[in-house]
Amino acid sequence: MSDGPKEGCWVGFDLGGTKMLAKVFDKDFKGLGQERKKTKAHEGMEAGMARMVHTVEKALEAAGVAKDQVAGIGVGSPGPLDLKRGMILTTPNLGWQNAPLKDTLEQAFGCPVVVANDVDAGVYGEYRFGAGRQARCVVGIFPGTGIGGGCVYEGRLIQGAVHSFMEIGHIPLVPGGPLCGCGRRGCLEAVASRLAIASAAAAAAFRGEAPHLLEAAGTDLANIRSGALAASVAAGDAAVEQIVREAARWLGRAVAVVVNLMGPDVVVLGGGLVDAMPALYKEEVGRAARQQVMPAFEETFMIEVAELGDDATVTGAAALARDLVVGRA
Amino acid sequence: MSDGPKEGCWVGFDLGGTKMLAKVFDKDFKGLGQERKKTKAHEGMEAGMARMVHTVEKALEAAGVAKDQVAGIGVGSPGPLDLKRGMILTTPNLGWQNAPLKDTLEQAFGCPVVVANDVDAGVYGEYRFGAGRQARCVVGIFPGTGIGGGCVYEGRLIQGAVHSFMEIGHIPLVPGGPLCGCGRRGCLEAVASRLAIASAAAAAAFRGEAPHLLEAAGTDLANIRSGALAASVAAGDAAVEQIVREAARWLGRAVAVVVNLMGPDVVVLGGGLVDAMPALYKEEVGRAARQQVMPAFEETFMIEVAELGDDATVTGAAALARDLVVGRA
Repeated sequence: MSDGPKEGCWVGFDLGGTKMLAKVFDKDFKGLGQERKKTKAHEGMEAGMARMVHTVEKALEAAGVAKDQVAGIGVGSPGPLDLKRGMILTTPNLGWQNAPLKDTLEQAFGCPVVVANDVDAGVYGEYRFGAGRQARCVVGIFPGTGIGGGCVYEGRLIQGAVHSFMEIGHIPLVPGGPLCGCGRRGCLEAVASRLAIASAAAAAAFRGEAPHLLEAAGTDLANIRSGALAASVAAGDAAVEQIVREAARWLGRAVAVVVNLMGPDVVVLGGGLVDAMPALYKEEVGRAARQQVMPAFEETFMIEVAELGDDATVTGAAALARDLVVGRA
Repeated sequence: MSDGPKEGCWVGFDLGGTKMLAKVFDKDFKGLGQERKKTKAHEGMEAGMARMVHTVEKALEAAGVAKDQVAGIGVGSPGPLDLKRGMILTTPNLGWQNAPLKDTLEQAFGCPVVVANDVDAGVYGEYRFGAGRQARCVVGIFPGTGIGGGCVYEGRLIQGAVHSFMEIGHIPLVPGGPLCGCGRRGCLEAVASRLAIASAAAAAAFRGEAPHLLEAAGTDLANIRSGALAASVAAGDAAVEQIVREAARWLGRAVAVVVNLMGPDVVVLGGGLVDAMPALYKEEVGRAARQQVMPAFEETFMIEVAELGDDATVTGAAALARDLVVGRA
């Protein structure tokens, strides 16, 4: 145990489909220690929540912080969630139903617990400490296997009464467009997610139009991850670059929708695809967005790449807990 | 002059392209008196702002309220506006440039003046006293000659740093769709405004497919107002009904976009077209929206028809001034 004062520490928790991460912050949001474990969702909900408690305990140990020095815990979780009750209603990723995250952690640690959508927590992190610092209105868009998004408007996360909202991935963009995982057609996610890109790129590879991708990753979507796509573009697979840029332009159109509606000062792009190709995304999304927003709004917003990486959700979840419990500094 | 106490009265002002309206409210937002004048925008900006001052003076006279009993004035104005400076930057409707509404009225009446976009003010009115009363998140959509919209989220109007935003009419809905007045293609306004409907209906009338409309209004768009469209539908012009319903379905798609992003509890529909055909709009917009939102959100929102009519903007502007000056009750 270190001997500095640890009163008012905050814990952020990122519950993912394959791994979970707990990180402990001091009152100035300096990271003190963390713990990462596999989620092992298949072991079931009870076991999973016990693992969550244990992960927080190990993170506190690593940080040299005692239970009674924890002022609050923020959890970023996949959903849909019941925000007020701090409960996972159901998750395709985890297979858990009605998981009482808030109650479980409050009982275990005796402090207030705030549960938010994992992407919302990440956007909140970028708003407080990352690429959206101090902005009046920040919109975050994170294209990966799916496409998540969130918005912090004048310090508040835009959420629904019960559920999280800001389903940027399900903006209907293409009337009669390709089928989306949500059951509708032509959603942003159906034309711009990593899965949409990988499908088109795999077809290009199969047709012999993407030799580098074919050699490196074959035609199995499971292997055509963001890194493989970036490597293929860098190696000169023009067909793949065209596919990625087209997806980025759809993302730009979604940005235009959000700019016309919310007037963000900063749009933060993050997630696997952007991490792998930040310059391409910043350029293509920015150009497409400016071509499609109302002409008067072309210069009202900036496009930035996320800064916090894998720490966005734990940082944002902890900061959200702090800001809801204590009020903004 | 009546002799009841009049301290803390609020004035709402609606600056329109053809007429202006000032209405005086007591502290409980009972209307005490009002004055309506033609805008006569062609007489220029200075004359126009002098008419505004005079209109407020006449409304106060009608209400039996002295200048020094006015706690604040709220103005709903067409834009684009500089919200902080309370200034019209430019208005196609009025032809005014850099009109200092806030400064002019503050000087004339010696009280705080708040300037907001006219549609935003109307949505705020519906949020405080109309169809969106007490809702956590209200979105208003007002299809008329153009299509305006606004959102009140947890008591706050969603606005930009400088300009008003929430340009629902310019959500890009149809890739490569018809040209919009804003210069882009396929905006909601280009497929669902009164003008879009009237153009299609005029063509139907010209082709002999809308006999009632042809007889009542001819093929001149200037005559094919919302009332004429409603009468034509009521009289059995099937082609016109089909055109209106298709436009309403586009509106429903825009509602789906907004629901997926903002999670409103209530979507309020108003404006000329909805006033003329409330049942048709409520039904068609509601059905189309529910078919296009994320399946999980189908039951999260209500569609309501606006309740305040022509008073929405004056009421909302006055209430906004009150809430910004005094804080929410």
